[in-house]
Amino acid sequence: MAAVVNRRVILKSRPVGAPKPSDFEITEAPVPAPKEGEMLCRTIYLSLDPYMRGRISGVKSYARGVDPGELMVGGTVSEVVESQHRDFKPGDLVQGYDGWQTHAISSGAGVRTLDPAQVPISTALGVLGMPGMTAYVGLLDIGQPKSGETVVVSAASGAVGAVVGQLAKLHGCRAVGIAGSDDKCDYVVDELGFDACVNYKTEALVPVLSAACPKGIDVYFENVGGTVTEAVMQLLNPFARIPLCGLISMYNATSPSPGPSWRALLTNRVLVKGFIVSDHLDRMPAFLEECTRWVREGRLKFREDIVDGLDSAPRAFIGLLEGQNFGKMLVRVGADPTRR
Amino acid sequence: MAAVVNRRVILKSRPVGAPKPSDFEITEAPVPAPKEGEMLCRTIYLSLDPYMRGRISGVKSYARGVDPGELMVGGTVSEVVESQHRDFKPGDLVQGYDGWQTHAISSGAGVRTLDPAQVPISTALGVLGMPGMTAYVGLLDIGQPKSGETVVVSAASGAVGAVVGQLAKLHGCRAVGIAGSDDKCDYVVDELGFDACVNYKTEALVPVLSAACPKGIDVYFENVGGTVTEAVMQLLNPFARIPLCGLISMYNATSPSPGPSWRALLTNRVLVKGFIVSDHLDRMPAFLEECTRWVREGRLKFREDIVDGLDSAPRAFIGLLEGQNFGKMLVRVGADPTRR
Repeated sequence: MAAVVNRRVILKSRPVGAPKPSDFEITEAPVPAPKEGEMLCRTIYLSLDPYMRGRISGVKSYARGVDPGELMVGGTVSEVVESQHRDFKPGDLVQGYDGWQTHAISSGAGVRTLDPAQVPISTALGVLGMPGMTAYVGLLDIGQPKSGETVVVSAASGAVGAVVGQLAKLHGCRAVGIAGSDDKCDYVVDELGFDACVNYKTEALVPVLSAACPKGIDVYFENVGGTVTEAVMQLLNPFARIPLCGLISMYNATSPSPGPSWRALLTNRVLVKGFIVSDHLDRMPAFLEECTRWVREGRLKFREDIVDGLDSAPRAFIGLLEGQNFGKMLVRVGADPTRR
Repeated sequence: MAAVVNRRVILKSRPVGAPKPSDFEITEAPVPAPKEGEMLCRTIYLSLDPYMRGRISGVKSYARGVDPGELMVGGTVSEVVESQHRDFKPGDLVQGYDGWQTHAISSGAGVRTLDPAQVPISTALGVLGMPGMTAYVGLLDIGQPKSGETVVVSAASGAVGAVVGQLAKLHGCRAVGIAGSDDKCDYVVDELGFDACVNYKTEALVPVLSAACPKGIDVYFENVGGTVTEAVMQLLNPFARIPLCGLISMYNATSPSPGPSWRALLTNRVLVKGFIVSDHLDRMPAFLEECTRWVREGRLKFREDIVDGLDSAPRAFIGLLEGQNFGKMLVRVGADPTRR
């Protein structure tokens, strides 16, 4: 293993506004050998997710951030190359949190072994990973959708939104998406089976959304904030629930934007609840059992937007924050042995 | 009874911005005799409450509004004068919803008989009425305060806020008020036993509130909105709860104000829940039993701001919306036989 070099993406400087490629730096270092209780992993897929913008912002938040000079964090699917860990052996495919690098030494903490015979291993970063579980917990535990209700989700073709709408349908709801292109809207309706989808960039949002939600909105799964939220607020039913998952429209903002007036929350007795999936890991077994079955049965579909090579990660991440991806954003860092 | 005249306050025109006395009109009409199943009530106390601003606004809300030409609505404590209703007899003291008038014909629906030997009858409109129950349901059921946590309440000397802080203390919490004068702050601390109170009109709110809440804010009972809310948002602890009860700072606004950014709700996983006490009438027995005991034991104190005569109601209501009252705002419409 002596000749192997680890390639890493480091945060070079904190972005002001939208991140630029020059905010990141690619460095190389030799790969150390794993010690007792450790293993060496080779990254196959790296997950890119909107939350990473918060981690590099320098603003105090729920998780420790990435300081300039540090490795970018992120979920990964990897192959075990060498192991001094009794639970893992070379060739094992695992999901971990190794960050933006080609190789990592892992203690095995929080690492989950994957079975490629069940589902594609990349799903462990998307529909059957953190984004899927975010949708599951937010929609079911906070949104509490009842059959016949209307569920609206923004960023509907994204990794989380796509699962939200499909779960809403599986629970007997009307699922209405909001997305940023006609292609995305077509996909959400034609492939994922949503009842309707509105392109917020081209349509007068309130009347079109109102037409798509003839019985009003009972659950709004919030991924974006801004004008989309303002429109939704006008259509909420009494006792509506808003799982507050993300605010991607604001992540590059240099000053905080105000939110919607609380008047509609009061008169309609609305619940808004911010949540972070890592507070709900007790729900992981139920999520994995139920959603793996639905994926295998073809009732829970997914789409991946995969770019090749670790060096593509910064630009792909920048694009993700602008909504340029179409489906779960992944970087193929190394060869996937299950897709040869 | 033929000579008795009913004096009534009618909404003359919808206020634009702050209501003016000329938006109301006082009219008189003869008092009819009660028919079978009805009773004639003489109003003793009329409750003035911030929600009434919403009812006369013409904006669609959770309850039917008052249109120009109609009687102003409101909770009342009355004496039964004549009765053709089997459950009520002349001389009974009752709490009902007879509106801004000296006399009313009542069907008895939603009317509760009061026992003046237990507690003063006026409490049925305040600490042991709708405002007290609003505090009880909002703080306990939505706020879910735990011993040792910090509870902040705005409009702290008002009918609802005063109960919120005292209930917080009874549940082992640190209670911090926000009010609009030094007199009100002194009262809240010295008389009601809050741990601290901040005058939002004279102090730089964030540092002073921060000093009053050294462990951050776990529950914010929202009565006001605006700059007070903005300050509170900066001090919320993870998993904070915000029972959203009222937004009095906005009730006279001619256009909706934006709310606080949702960023802090997301990163701190905050719950915001709008509520209206009338959705929670199932909690009435528990509230009355518990809080009546506390009032009788002197552990739940109250203060009333009483003006005399029905004709004073419009100006008192206008003052209430500007925070000029000090304690539960009541109009003594007729003689209180228990305070002779």
